[in-house]
Amino acid sequence: MTATPTRQDLTSPDPDGDSVGARRQPHAELARYLEVRGLTDALCAELSAEDQTAQSMPDVSPTKWHRAHTTWFFETFVLRPHHPGYIEFDPGFEHLFNSYYEGVGSPYPRAERGAITRPGIERIAQYRDHVDSAMVELLAPGCDAPTAELVTLGLHHEQQHQELLLMDIAHVLSRHPDHPAYRPVMADAPSPLLDPGWITIPGGVVEIGHDGNGFAFDNEGPRHRVWLEPFEIATRLVTNGDWCEFIADGGYERSSLWLSDGWNHCRTAGWRAPLYWSKPDGSWVEGTLGGRTELDPHRPVSHVSFYEAEAFARWKGARLATEAEWEQAVTSQRICPDDPKDAESRFDPNRLLPRPATPGGGSTSELAEAFGRVWQWTASAYLPYPGFRPAPGAVGEYNGKFMSGQMVLRGSSCLTPPGHARVSYRNFFPPSARWPMTGVRLARDVTS
Amino acid sequence: MTATPTRQDLTSPDPDGDSVGARRQPHAELARYLEVRGLTDALCAELSAEDQTAQSMPDVSPTKWHRAHTTWFFETFVLRPHHPGYIEFDPGFEHLFNSYYEGVGSPYPRAERGAITRPGIERIAQYRDHVDSAMVELLAPGCDAPTAELVTLGLHHEQQHQELLLMDIAHVLSRHPDHPAYRPVMADAPSPLLDPGWITIPGGVVEIGHDGNGFAFDNEGPRHRVWLEPFEIATRLVTNGDWCEFIADGGYERSSLWLSDGWNHCRTAGWRAPLYWSKPDGSWVEGTLGGRTELDPHRPVSHVSFYEAEAFARWKGARLATEAEWEQAVTSQRICPDDPKDAESRFDPNRLLPRPATPGGGSTSELAEAFGRVWQWTASAYLPYPGFRPAPGAVGEYNGKFMSGQMVLRGSSCLTPPGHARVSYRNFFPPSARWPMTGVRLARDVTS
Amino acid sequence: MTATPTRQDLTSPDPDGDSVGARRQPHAELARYLEVRGLTDALCAELSAEDQTAQSMPDVSPTKWHRAHTTWFFETFVLRPHHPGYIEFDPGFEHLFNSYYEGVGSPYPRAERGAITRPGIERIAQYRDHVDSAMVELLAPGCDAPTAELVTLGLHHEQQHQELLLMDIAHVLSRHPDHPAYRPVMADAPSPLLDPGWITIPGGVVEIGHDGNGFAFDNEGPRHRVWLEPFEIATRLVTNGDWCEFIADGGYERSSLWLSDGWNHCRTAGWRAPLYWSKPDGSWVEGTLGGRTELDPHRPVSHVSFYEAEAFARWKGARLATEAEWEQAVTSQRICPDDPKDAESRFDPNRLLPRPATPGGGSTSELAEAFGRVWQWTASAYLPYPGFRPAPGAVGEYNGKFMSGQMVLRGSSCLTPPGHARVSYRNFFPPSARWPMTGVRLARDVTS
Amino acid sequence: MTATPTRQDLTSPDPDGDSVGARRQPHAELARYLEVRGLTDALCAELSAEDQTAQSMPDVSPTKWHRAHTTWFFETFVLRPHHPGYIEFDPGFEHLFNSYYEGVGSPYPRAERGAITRPGIERIAQYRDHVDSAMVELLAPGCDAPTAELVTLGLHHEQQHQELLLMDIAHVLSRHPDHPAYRPVMADAPSPLLDPGWITIPGGVVEIGHDGNGFAFDNEGPRHRVWLEPFEIATRLVTNGDWCEFIADGGYERSSLWLSDGWNHCRTAGWRAPLYWSKPDGSWVEGTLGGRTELDPHRPVSHVSFYEAEAFARWKGARLATEAEWEQAVTSQRICPDDPKDAESRFDPNRLLPRPATPGGGSTSELAEAFGRVWQWTASAYLPYPGFRPAPGAVGEYNGKFMSGQMVLRGSSCLTPPGHARVSYRNFFPPSARWPMTGVRLARDVTS
Repeated sequence: MTATPTRQDLTSPDPDGDSVGARRQPHAELARYLEVRGLTDALCAELSAEDQTAQSMPDVSPTKWHRAHTTWFFETFVLRPHHPGYIEFDPGFEHLFNSYYEGVGSPYPRAERGAITRPGIERIAQYRDHVDSAMVELLAPGCDAPTAELVTLGLHHEQQHQELLLMDIAHVLSRHPDHPAYRPVMADAPSPLLDPGWITIPGGVVEIGHDGNGFAFDNEGPRHRVWLEPFEIATRLVTNGDWCEFIADGGYERSSLWLSDGWNHCRTAGWRAPLYWSKPDGSWVEGTLGGRTELDPHRPVSHVSFYEAEAFARWKGARLATEAEWEQAVTSQRICPDDPKDAESRFDPNRLLPRPATPGGGSTSELAEAFGRVWQWTASAYLPYPGFRPAPGAVGEYNGKFMSGQMVLRGSSCLTPPGHARVSYRNFFPPSARWPMTGVRLARDVTS
Repeated sequence: MTATPTRQDLTSPDPDGDSVGARRQPHAELARYLEVRGLTDALCAELSAEDQTAQSMPDVSPTKWHRAHTTWFFETFVLRPHHPGYIEFDPGFEHLFNSYYEGVGSPYPRAERGAITRPGIERIAQYRDHVDSAMVELLAPGCDAPTAELVTLGLHHEQQHQELLLMDIAHVLSRHPDHPAYRPVMADAPSPLLDPGWITIPGGVVEIGHDGNGFAFDNEGPRHRVWLEPFEIATRLVTNGDWCEFIADGGYERSSLWLSDGWNHCRTAGWRAPLYWSKPDGSWVEGTLGGRTELDPHRPVSHVSFYEAEAFARWKGARLATEAEWEQAVTSQRICPDDPKDAESRFDPNRLLPRPATPGGGSTSELAEAFGRVWQWTASAYLPYPGFRPAPGAVGEYNGKFMSGQMVLRGSSCLTPPGHARVSYRNFFPPSARWPMTGVRLARDVTS
Repeated sequence: MTATPTRQDLTSPDPDGDSVGARRQPHAELARYLEVRGLTDALCAELSAEDQTAQSMPDVSPTKWHRAHTTWFFETFVLRPHHPGYIEFDPGFEHLFNSYYEGVGSPYPRAERGAITRPGIERIAQYRDHVDSAMVELLAPGCDAPTAELVTLGLHHEQQHQELLLMDIAHVLSRHPDHPAYRPVMADAPSPLLDPGWITIPGGVVEIGHDGNGFAFDNEGPRHRVWLEPFEIATRLVTNGDWCEFIADGGYERSSLWLSDGWNHCRTAGWRAPLYWSKPDGSWVEGTLGGRTELDPHRPVSHVSFYEAEAFARWKGARLATEAEWEQAVTSQRICPDDPKDAESRFDPNRLLPRPATPGGGSTSELAEAFGRVWQWTASAYLPYPGFRPAPGAVGEYNGKFMSGQMVLRGSSCLTPPGHARVSYRNFFPPSARWPMTGVRLARDVTS
Repeated sequence: MTATPTRQDLTSPDPDGDSVGARRQPHAELARYLEVRGLTDALCAELSAEDQTAQSMPDVSPTKWHRAHTTWFFETFVLRPHHPGYIEFDPGFEHLFNSYYEGVGSPYPRAERGAITRPGIERIAQYRDHVDSAMVELLAPGCDAPTAELVTLGLHHEQQHQELLLMDIAHVLSRHPDHPAYRPVMADAPSPLLDPGWITIPGGVVEIGHDGNGFAFDNEGPRHRVWLEPFEIATRLVTNGDWCEFIADGGYERSSLWLSDGWNHCRTAGWRAPLYWSKPDGSWVEGTLGGRTELDPHRPVSHVSFYEAEAFARWKGARLATEAEWEQAVTSQRICPDDPKDAESRFDPNRLLPRPATPGGGSTSELAEAFGRVWQWTASAYLPYPGFRPAPGAVGEYNGKFMSGQMVLRGSSCLTPPGHARVSYRNFFPPSARWPMTGVRLARDVTS
């Protein structure tokens, strides 16, 4: 599983994976398990031991930590309680690879994960094999529903870490003066830019949140009613070209465009452009997982903070959508992630950049690029839905305890693995975060 | 105006003041102006020059700064544009006493206000007199509606600073090893505790926000519809006695009760009790504006952060109300601040502690203590209402730009000056703030 | 004693005061006590309560703290043990006004002295009067030698704080955008600049350190032998004009001129010139105790750190003298502080700037300006002399425990009170300190 | 060279190596070059890529950085100017592996070396091979004296980094909860403790510093005269057992024993024992390069700061020696490092702990353990010797610019590679540093 993957390895995962659970075929869990775990291995296969060890800032975790932590999740929450003959791989791993579950022992300080050199990547590969073998034993004969639910949770957890792992390694590599590539990234053919447009969504009492059919994280429910005023939402994402205009118009120098906290961050951190932009020779260059490339003005802008997104929207005379507005817009347009017809929104490890929308792929009267490009900052703070209850026990520490000081992002990104996106998905980051694959879609009030 | 006030000076303000503007009597603005400005002077009259100079942490401003800044507001936004013959008192004051209005020059760094010793309190008194004289000239003949609106805004601004000034001086004095008194505080007669109870509020589409009649800050509008599920809200506030139980049950030691950010704050800052509590000789003592006193278990708990309030609610199996729930509960119970029949909720400079509710003052089937004790943390992040637009110009920097990283508090406190509370009032502080007069009212879902 | 002083009050102190103790006249201690204590009061007399309360950075103490702390010293080390009927003024003052004597209770955190508003300056004046009355009772009949020694120590301690008080209030006032004056400062007549020259001092075994005749701090002894190579020392101090050349030649931009730690400080703090220099309209202006004034190129440069002094010396192809070299140079030239013929080096509260040397006041073959202008950074770390033993008890915490991380300065400054300077005096500050009255005298090796 | 070394590889280096340069045999430089470079490789051979990448605090550098930086030194200062046909290996390495030479390009921020994952250890091995091949080309025919001097400097530089590398990897491994071993360390047979004793050294004018015969760093000279009073110096080092007594007597809790800065560090960092000591089950355990082991009371104490050493000395009624005293004591006793008869002081990669002195190895009337156990903190600040001039150019940045804020250590340690110790060697670290192999030898005044 840790051998160098072929291209095939990286592109084969079934984008409909999430629906597999619903069908509950005899070996569905097992197949899904092997598929998701295999993708993690494939994503790491070309990273050296050195690459996998570094932690470039406190928010970033080393690649090898991600690989072990996701394995620890299965060991702790599935194998220990549900596999009677399971023999723990290494008792010291609990302390090292527990991320934050205070209910389960004491986690090693997050900001210092980069100081831990052992176990190395070979031993972590053995750990993964050990756990995978036990999981195969557990799943091969078929398993009961509660176990299956935990496995599904573990796989979605692993998929989250797949995206984190890609975000994190991008940050690590960005610290190198040469900004080396994670892997070669296929260039998109230059294409005309989709014209911007607006869709009007009517207001009223609407329902949002996950309806309980199929897997969702606990924070996506319960489904509940919300009152919305009518609003307009942009048909396409804000592009790098749009952002250049914002910069040229003094966007980073005019305090009146910014929230107070945002302006403080902007000045303190010296923000002048999105995170990975630089101007070595007079024109903008963007650091990507494929290394440094000339800035493509047609791509959706990425690696901007909520503060920047909010300031940009104010500059445009618009605003960000609330998460309820975003969900209602996408639902009302009948847009699904992993739509088999929408090749552009599918995860492709050879294209880890947000692809520009092609005019053929939509019209200015349709909502485009909801999934598979960049997470879209919303105007909503990350708070519990009415009636929200975290799951009991340590698994319940998953989401609820982070409901403070963060903003919700909706959609999915080009780094989101197949089968992991949902209309009801609530991603969240602090408003100053720029290293996730974040971008902007505008909204505005209907002025009657 | 700066002479030592009599008791009369401090207690006379008309609690119906806010409605004066609506009646628009010939000298209504003038009377209201003199009344509010006079209260500021009265509140500072017994503070020495030394007391008025200190800044005990970056969030606190010196008393003398509050006195000058509120004066600068009238000079800048009323006198300069609207009083043709006005002569500026001192051109250097703009830089010193502008708080944060980036649109008007550049403010002096907030955290360093305590390093500014000049002007001293005598010259600030002269500044206040100078501006007051000009304001009397402007207002005596009556003024046009736009000017009147700015004056009203300036007075509400000054009232906000009256409460800030009291919070801030309480913090300054708390840093002294003896925790000296700001002024003697009258003791309440001991009284039986109001039994706790719950009121059920039905759900549906409700309207919240200010309706535009009379003054409100821009952040209180526009009035808009919200969908609410039915919920229950506690008839009384959480008391010091309740909080002692929380402490005794390990409330400050059990990570499972806390949001992740809250737990970090709790451990880093070494929280073990509300801000001004200490246990010098084995039993709890509370620092107040009247100095240190034995803890009264019947008083509403005060000086707790949002994080603590939220953890307490979880410990109780309850939660905090959203701001829409809080407003709907108060509205549906027809509760008004400054109710002339409710003496307990009136501002009384001789009683600057949250008074315990007396059983005669309400029943367990009624919502008590909504105003005049402690601000009540809500579960709502401080975000713009749908359709919110800040006022144009520097006045528009008043509220909107702080809509990030803060939580809403509702009601009013024993430090809120008369005529300043409103059902739609949105107070806001960071979730870790403990020096405001903050407390807790519980809510819970209706479980059918 | 706290009434506004006349000019006479401020200028009368006997510059020969230090020799008084040696003569031991009947009322010598008493006269000296009243003189020194009176100067403290005189120095503070024109500072408002607000001025006396502020602490502009952790290293600075509020004026009123200096006034109370020096009083606490007499109360604690003289009156309590030696005046049988002494009644403590206020038991809470121990905690507030103990500076660092860990052996005597626990000091209030130094960086937070500015948060303590009470006692105010009136009560501190009463405290001073109370202690002074008791001291007069104790000293009037004459006192035994051990008591007299403690009184002398207390007076030198108070003189140290007189200079600290002036340094500190200069820093407080510098934080104000207008840099107001502490008091009017008399301008010196413009005069030609003393030509720079060098004096050669022969090497060999020399003796340095205090010889035990008359008062000295413990750190000035024991007198001991040192081997010196022959060296040259500059006849005059480095001037503002010299420093302008250093700046113009890129002195603050060339890392090769700086110690590594110094360069880090320079870049981190953004040093571009001495502490109080600014260039509001294209030419240099200097902030002084007399307010902002045009830079006088003939004055000795002041308010530079050791790091800057050291870089300047390297730029000049020279170096700083060691403290032994400095002392040997001054001794061999028979220079004394408070020389009655050298009016320029006398403390003058109306001239709190380092005066330029006048050509008539010396020749290029003589060492000028050793005392009364600026403290001169040496190349010596502040370490114990061979055989050094701190005095037993809390008094012994005076000097020895600070012998780490600081550099020695020699001479005295225009802020040093009369009778406080000595050839053997060892002043010390961290190498980054710029708010003391510090300057530079160059030295160099004799190249044979 | 990067293959796993045999025991032979690690133990063969000639301890007399330093004198080789003096003899100047035909291939002396070449042999020495290969020997020193080979030891670096051998020391790293058992460290994984992960181990070699981590940076556990800003003062620590990753192993792979040390390997590349020492190579860069030869490339930059020897090959580029002196090998006409040399082809640079990788132009990007200059920025990455320049440590601090501001005169040569701009160094990558030191604290962030752990974020640089590329080049990995394989490519760094290639870099070493590339440079080594060119160096062999340069040295094989024999080279001129200036080149030979630079090579010698480069080799001593590399030896310094060999010790740093061992100190740094010890710190990295100490961060792991299990404190894993760098390599197995051979246990010493238990032996009786050398009795402590004192040697009296007469005073007078003595000469210290390097005399220019053979290699020395620039900071060791010029040789110069110093006056010393007679003093006594301890015959053996302070042991772990001695330190246990200090702890038991409240050494870490009594402020009166400490310098003020030291006490601040002690409290802030929570020091309770030397750096790597812990008490998991009631008795002291020490973390070493061989992993965690029971504390041996006979070993010299190690990993203590200057502050702790100084406090310990005060507790003992003694003091630390100055560096001149230390050098004079060692010189007068005719002690040399790498003495072929003193097997205990020789570098042994299988014994990377400070060995206890055996009674047979000395008597209480002789100075023992001067070299090869622990560096001995002195009472001297790290300052230039009289007449010191740094070498011109970037090589001159080697030592002089660090002469601020650090204390001198003398002797050598069990981590110091063979041939690198000298009587005149001046090691230096900040007074709070505990991760070097530091220890304590006491001195005291002769009380006549």
